[in-house]
Amino acid sequence: MEYVRDFRWKKGMSACELAQGLSKVGFQSVELERAVQTIVKMKKAGAKVFFTYTSNMVTSGLRGFFAQIVDTGMADVIVTTVGGIEEDIMKANGEKFIIGDFNSNDVALHEEGINRVGNLFIRNESYARFEDIVGPMLKKLYLKKKRWAVSEIFREIGLMIDDENSILYQAARNDVPVFCPAVTDGAFGFHLFMFQQDHPDFVVDVVKDFSNILFCVSHDDVKGLICLGGSISKHHAILACLLNGGADYAVYMTTARHTSGSMSGATTQEAKSWGKIKDDSDAATVIGDVSITFPIAMVHALEILEKEGFLSAKKRNGKKEDKLVRGDKKC
Amino acid sequence: MEYVRDFRWKKGMSACELAQGLSKVGFQSVELERAVQTIVKMKKAGAKVFFTYTSNMVTSGLRGFFAQIVDTGMADVIVTTVGGIEEDIMKANGEKFIIGDFNSNDVALHEEGINRVGNLFIRNESYARFEDIVGPMLKKLYLKKKRWAVSEIFREIGLMIDDENSILYQAARNDVPVFCPAVTDGAFGFHLFMFQQDHPDFVVDVVKDFSNILFCVSHDDVKGLICLGGSISKHHAILACLLNGGADYAVYMTTARHTSGSMSGATTQEAKSWGKIKDDSDAATVIGDVSITFPIAMVHALEILEKEGFLSAKKRNGKKEDKLVRGDKKC
Amino acid sequence: MEYVRDFRWKKGMSACELAQGLSKVGFQSVELERAVQTIVKMKKAGAKVFFTYTSNMVTSGLRGFFAQIVDTGMADVIVTTVGGIEEDIMKANGEKFIIGDFNSNDVALHEEGINRVGNLFIRNESYARFEDIVGPMLKKLYLKKKRWAVSEIFREIGLMIDDENSILYQAARNDVPVFCPAVTDGAFGFHLFMFQQDHPDFVVDVVKDFSNILFCVSHDDVKGLICLGGSISKHHAILACLLNGGADYAVYMTTARHTSGSMSGATTQEAKSWGKIKDDSDAATVIGDVSITFPIAMVHALEILEKEGFLSAKKRNGKKEDKLVRGDKKC
Amino acid sequence: MEYVRDFRWKKGMSACELAQGLSKVGFQSVELERAVQTIVKMKKAGAKVFFTYTSNMVTSGLRGFFAQIVDTGMADVIVTTVGGIEEDIMKANGEKFIIGDFNSNDVALHEEGINRVGNLFIRNESYARFEDIVGPMLKKLYLKKKRWAVSEIFREIGLMIDDENSILYQAARNDVPVFCPAVTDGAFGFHLFMFQQDHPDFVVDVVKDFSNILFCVSHDDVKGLICLGGSISKHHAILACLLNGGADYAVYMTTARHTSGSMSGATTQEAKSWGKIKDDSDAATVIGDVSITFPIAMVHALEILEKEGFLSAKKRNGKKEDKLVRGDKKC
Repeated sequence: MEYVRDFRWKKGMSACELAQGLSKVGFQSVELERAVQTIVKMKKAGAKVFFTYTSNMVTSGLRGFFAQIVDTGMADVIVTTVGGIEEDIMKANGEKFIIGDFNSNDVALHEEGINRVGNLFIRNESYARFEDIVGPMLKKLYLKKKRWAVSEIFREIGLMIDDENSILYQAARNDVPVFCPAVTDGAFGFHLFMFQQDHPDFVVDVVKDFSNILFCVSHDDVKGLICLGGSISKHHAILACLLNGGADYAVYMTTARHTSGSMSGATTQEAKSWGKIKDDSDAATVIGDVSITFPIAMVHALEILEKEGFLSAKKRNGKKEDKLVRGDKKC
Repeated sequence: MEYVRDFRWKKGMSACELAQGLSKVGFQSVELERAVQTIVKMKKAGAKVFFTYTSNMVTSGLRGFFAQIVDTGMADVIVTTVGGIEEDIMKANGEKFIIGDFNSNDVALHEEGINRVGNLFIRNESYARFEDIVGPMLKKLYLKKKRWAVSEIFREIGLMIDDENSILYQAARNDVPVFCPAVTDGAFGFHLFMFQQDHPDFVVDVVKDFSNILFCVSHDDVKGLICLGGSISKHHAILACLLNGGADYAVYMTTARHTSGSMSGATTQEAKSWGKIKDDSDAATVIGDVSITFPIAMVHALEILEKEGFLSAKKRNGKKEDKLVRGDKKC
Repeated sequence: MEYVRDFRWKKGMSACELAQGLSKVGFQSVELERAVQTIVKMKKAGAKVFFTYTSNMVTSGLRGFFAQIVDTGMADVIVTTVGGIEEDIMKANGEKFIIGDFNSNDVALHEEGINRVGNLFIRNESYARFEDIVGPMLKKLYLKKKRWAVSEIFREIGLMIDDENSILYQAARNDVPVFCPAVTDGAFGFHLFMFQQDHPDFVVDVVKDFSNILFCVSHDDVKGLICLGGSISKHHAILACLLNGGADYAVYMTTARHTSGSMSGATTQEAKSWGKIKDDSDAATVIGDVSITFPIAMVHALEILEKEGFLSAKKRNGKKEDKLVRGDKKC
Repeated sequence: MEYVRDFRWKKGMSACELAQGLSKVGFQSVELERAVQTIVKMKKAGAKVFFTYTSNMVTSGLRGFFAQIVDTGMADVIVTTVGGIEEDIMKANGEKFIIGDFNSNDVALHEEGINRVGNLFIRNESYARFEDIVGPMLKKLYLKKKRWAVSEIFREIGLMIDDENSILYQAARNDVPVFCPAVTDGAFGFHLFMFQQDHPDFVVDVVKDFSNILFCVSHDDVKGLICLGGSISKHHAILACLLNGGADYAVYMTTARHTSGSMSGATTQEAKSWGKIKDDSDAATVIGDVSITFPIAMVHALEILEKEGFLSAKKRNGKKEDKLVRGDKKC
C-alpha cells in the first residue's frame, strides 16, 4: 500500500527530483507517475513502441523533443497527422512560429496575414515558402517511381532534410517509419493534388501503407503505445496493435474526456474491452495539456532509463555511437 | 440589446417552444440559439453546406437523424471518419448496438466478446458480419474499374444499400458526396488491404478525392459549415472551404477546449485569422455533447425552415416529391 | 437489454417526444434519460429532495424555472451560493441582465460599468440598487431579533418579495428552506458587514443553520439529491444526506471532470464509497452545461409526473389549488 | 516578438532548466511561463498575496508545499474550503491517505470503510480520530471567549499544532490569516454544531470575519492573487481584492472551463470587466490539473526569487532566520 507524501521544494532540485516529488501527490500527478513507470517498463521489456502525436504539438515546440525521442531509440513507429509533417519540414527550412495569445483579435490577425493556432501565430509566408520546397521534393520522388506508399514518401523526404531537430530526419536515419493515414488533409495534400494534375499516373497508395503499418510489428513482438492527444494518429496505432494481438503497454495523454464516447477521450481501460491493449497490460491515462505533461513524464523516464543503461546506442548508418554522453549527476 | 428571460415549463410544450424558451437563457443555451440562427440563415442564403461528424455519433443513434438531414436537403457535402461509414453499413445490415455503461468491467466485457464505446457496446459478431458484406461490395467495384477515389466508393456502396435511415443511402440518392480523408483507418481499411493483396492493381486514389472535395463547391458559392466534433472530418471540410475563399456561415459543436491549440477545440473565432471562415461571417461555437446539443438545435432549425418553406422538395432520381408533410401545428 | 435507436425529427414534435427520441441515443443522451428516470422515481417514492445550484444559473435565466420547480413541489430543501440569492432579489426588483458575448473586450466593458459573467452582462447600477433594497430588509430583521440563522433570513426576505418567478418567494410560500453555507461571500455579505458595523449585536449564526439543514430531513426519510453544478452547494446537501444515512436517489449535472479529485467533478459513483448515496441507489451523472441539460431533463420528468398525477397541488398558505392546469396533449 | 523554441532533454537537467525549456513551448506551457513571471513580479513588487486553494489539494499531497510557501513568505492571506483545514489537521495528527485508483469498486470500498477522493483513499478511522482532536480544541477556545471570527479560530488551532508541514502551523507562526467562508461545510462544521448544542452561547461570527479579510489589505497595497482551483476560496479572495480596488497581479490555475459562466472557470480576462483585477495588471490563466501545473510553476518562481534574494528571512516569533539555505547550484 502506497501513501500520499507531501511535496516539498528543495533549492536547485533536478527535474528528476521534481518528478519524484510529484509521484506521491494525488490526482493527475499520480497518473503521470504511472505513465513514467509504464514507459520505463515498455522500454526495458524491449517493446516495439508506437509513438503518436497531433500536428499542434509539432507547432508547439515539442518537435525537437520528439526528434530526440526517436534518436534515443524510444520510438519504433510514428503515426501523426499531416500538419505534423508539414510543420516539421517548415521548421527544418528555418520557419519560425510566434508566441502569441489565445485572446487575439482574429480579424485583425487575418488582415496582417497571420494565422492563429491557439496561442501561437504562423505567418502566411511560411506556407508560401513551404510550397516552394515541396514541389521539387515530389519531382524527385516521381522520378524514382510512380506509386508510393505514404510512409515511403516521408522516409525519402526525411533523407532530404538536414536538421537534427527534425522528426522526419531522425526517423529516416533511425529506420522509424512515419505513418499518416490522412495524408491529403493539409497543405501537403494540396501540393500532392497540384502535382497529380500534371502527373496523372502519380499515385499515393494508402492501402499499401496499411499493410506497411500492419507488418511493421508482429503478433510475437512485445508492443507499446505512447499516444499524445487523440485523432486518427492515436486510433491508427491502436488499430495496428489490435490487429497484432493488442498492446502490452500503453500510455495515453490527452485533454479529451471519456464522457462523449470519442476515440480522443477513450481511456486505456476502454481499450481493454476491444483487446486493443491486453487485459493484464500496464497502462496509464493522463489528463492534461501534453505540452506540460509529456515533457515532465518523458524526461523522468529518460533519466531513469539512461541511468540503468537502456538508452544505449543504436546502429545508425553503419556507425555505432553513443547518443547521450554519460554524466555523473545523480537524481 | 437583448435581455435574459426566465425560462418556464408549459405543460405539453413543443420541442420548438422548449428551444425558444432556452434561447434567452445565458451560457451555452445562448450559443445554441446562435447556432440555430446560423443554420437557418445559411439555408435561406442557399449556402452549400459541409456537414461533418465523427464515427461515435453514428454509433450513438444520431445516424438516422443525419440521414434525415441529408434527405431534407440540409447537407450538400459530408465529411466523416471511416468508422462512421462502417457503422452506417453495419446498421443498414441490421446490426444492433447495446446501451451499456461508462463504468463497466472492461476485462469481463472483453471475455464476452463485447467492445465498449463510451456507454455503448458493440458485439464482435457485428464486425465479423461486416466482413462478409464488404468483400462482395469491393468485388463489384473492382469489376467496374481499378482506380477509385474514396467518395466514388461510398457513392457506389450507398446505391447498394436499402435503408432510409442510412446516411450512405440518402447521400447517394441525393447526390451528396461523402468524403473520408483517412479511409484505411478502421475495419474498412483492413478489408481494402485484404482485397488489394489479391488484386494488386486495385488503387484507392486519395489525391484524386482531394480534387473532388475542392471542386464540389466554388469560390462563388455561398458556403456553410456544420462541424460536429473535431477530428480530420472537421479539418478537411474547413480546408476545402479555405481553399475556396472561406465559409460564410459556420457552426462548430464540440466538447474539446480551445486551450490546447488543437483542431478539435479550435473556435470559429480562431478560424477567422486563417480566412477559414470569413471576417463578417455568422458563426457559433457550442460546447457540449453533440448527442444532446445537436438534436435540440437542429430540430429547432428544421421547424423554422419548414414553416418558412425552405425544406421544399429536391429533385431526386428524376422524381419530385415533398420530403415532409406540411401540418398546421404552431410553435 | 436495451438497444440504440436512431433518432428522427417529426414535424411539430413535443419536448417530451424530443426527450424520448434522445433516450435511446448513446453517450450523454443516455445519461440524461437516466437522470429523468431517477427524478421521476425519487418523486414517486415521496423522497425529500435536496435541490442545489450555483449563482450563475440564477443569472442565466433558469431562475424562473427553479421557482416553478419549487412551486410544483419538486424541491424540499434548497442549497445555493449567495450570488444565487442576490440575483434572485435583484431580478425580483426588476433588474435585467444583458445577453452578451464570451469574446468581449473586458477592459472596455469595465470602462462602461458593465460586469461580465460568461456571455452575460450585469450593469454596475444593478448592484447599486441592490444595496438600497438590502439595507431596509436587514433593519426589519434586526427589529425582530438579533441572532439569525441564515435560512431564517432568506425565509423572511422571501416573504418580503412579490414575484412568482422568484425562488425565495416560492421557497418561503412553500415552506422550502434555503441554505447558503457561505453567506458572506458576495455583495450580500458586504451589506451584512456594513450593518453589523452599526449593530454589533447582530449575529448571523451559521452553526445553528447547520443544525437546521441536519434536522430538515431524518434518517427514515427517503432522500433525493438533484445537484446542478459543483461548489459548496452540492457538497453541503450531500453532507446533510450523509449525516442522515445517505441519499436514495441522486442526479448530478456538471461540466467538471472527475479526474482532478474535486467535489465539483465527483461522480455519483464516488459518492457511494462515502455512503453519501446508498449502495443500491438510483443515480445518474450528466456531463454538460446545465443551461441546456437540466431544462430538457426536467421538462421531460415534469411531463411524466404530471401525466401520472404526481404534481398534485400542495397546501399553500391554507389555500389548496392546482399548480398546473391539466391539458389533454399527448406526448 | 518571441518565437517558439524546440524543447530538448539534457541529462541531469534541473527543474529550473526543465521549466525554462518549456517556457517557449506553445499552448499551456506558455501560459505556465506567464504564471511564473507574474508570480515573480508580484513578489518583487512587494504585493500582499492572496493564496487560495480547495480541500482536495490538501488531500493530494500539495499540503507540505503550501506550508512551505507560507513559510517562505510567498502568501500573505489564505482562503480555502473547510476540508482543506480538516485534512491539514488530520495529517498533522499523523493520518495517512492512500494512493488508490479512479476506477475502483466504490461499493466494495464502502464496505471496507474507505472513502474515495478521485484516486486517493481516506479511511473512516481518520475521520473518527479527527473528532477526538477537535472537541478539546473547541473547549480551549471557548474558555477564552464565546464569540469567534473564523480566522481567529484557525490561528488558535495553528498555534496548537506542532508540524512544520502543516499549513495552519506555518500560517499562525507567520501571521498569515486563514479565511474560510463556509466553515460549517464539512466534518469541522459538524463538530462546531455538536459543541454549540452543549454551549449555546458559542458563536462563530462569519460577518466579523468578512471585515477581517476586507481590512487585511488596503486600497494602497499592491495586491496579488494566486488562485488554485475554483470554489468560494477563489471568489472570496477576488471579492476582497475588488473591494480594495482590484488586484495588480493575478494567476488562476484551474481545470474548469470559462464556457459555463461559472466562477471556477472565470478567466483573469473576465475579471477585468469587474475591476476584480486592474485593467493593466499582469495576469495568467493556466488550464490543467493543479497537482502538476502548480509545483512546476511555483518551483521555477521560487528558484528565480531565491537567486535574486527575494526569499529573504522574515521576522518570525521574534527570531530572524534564513528559511532557505543558499546553495551554489546553477540553473
